[in-house]
Amino acid sequence: MASSAIDIAREFWRLMATNDFQAVGAVLAPEFILEWPLSGERIRGAERFARMNAEYPASGPWKFTIHRIVGGETEAVSDVDVTDGVQSARAISFFTVREGKIARLIEYWPEPYAPPAYRAHLVEPID
Amino acid sequence: MASSAIDIAREFWRLMATNDFQAVGAVLAPEFILEWPLSGERIRGAERFARMNAEYPASGPWKFTIHRIVGGETEAVSDVDVTDGVQSARAISFFTVREGKIARLIEYWPEPYAPPAYRAHLVEPID
Repeated sequence: MASSAIDIAREFWRLMATNDFQAVGAVLAPEFILEWPLSGERIRGAERFARMNAEYPASGPWKFTIHRIVGGETEAVSDVDVTDGVQSARAISFFTVREGKIARLIEYWPEPYAPPAYRAHLVEPID
Repeated sequence: MASSAIDIAREFWRLMATNDFQAVGAVLAPEFILEWPLSGERIRGAERFARMNAEYPASGPWKFTIHRIVGGETEAVSDVDVTDGVQSARAISFFTVREGKIARLIEYWPEPYAPPAYRAHLVEPID
């Protein structure tokens, strides 16, 4: 039975957590592309994707915490924390799935920021 | 007939585009909360949400470009560009819908960044 995009996104993160980035290719389509709209970059293919992850300057194995995955049969979005024990980051990833494989990922890496002053009288801190 | 979370998210952005922020309350649940995890802020209720939008230091009416909306019956995620003609920003918004109204929004506002050097040999520019 065909897996939903949500299932495939979970499997993607499970494979990423092995830190065997070649293994992630199991859920990537031959035409896989990953786009980062906010740096204007695109990477093509499972092989370059694996090299990119392996070559990232990391302080230890990557761990991933899935906050949420939303979606349906062919599209899903994950909200994930990434850390190597020293660096931490948040990835918001839009998955497009074709025939059970990830054909396209669009990723955002939002950074922490100070609460803006203009709305200080309207908000409360998150614990 | 009940609307899907995707329909409600579209209606939210249609109402936001009127720049009548009180009107947006039509799609917000009584228990509405909005959270910005990366600044650690939470805002409660349609009234404070409307004030926050009205008080934002803007140079003109806000325009919104929906890049994509992904989701299902009760959850959706939108990827939207926001501009007042001077400032531009990107909002990634996770919607949780209950009984046809938005009960929770979780928002990320990722910023542009320079392409990192470590992966320059593996990527191409997005046109």
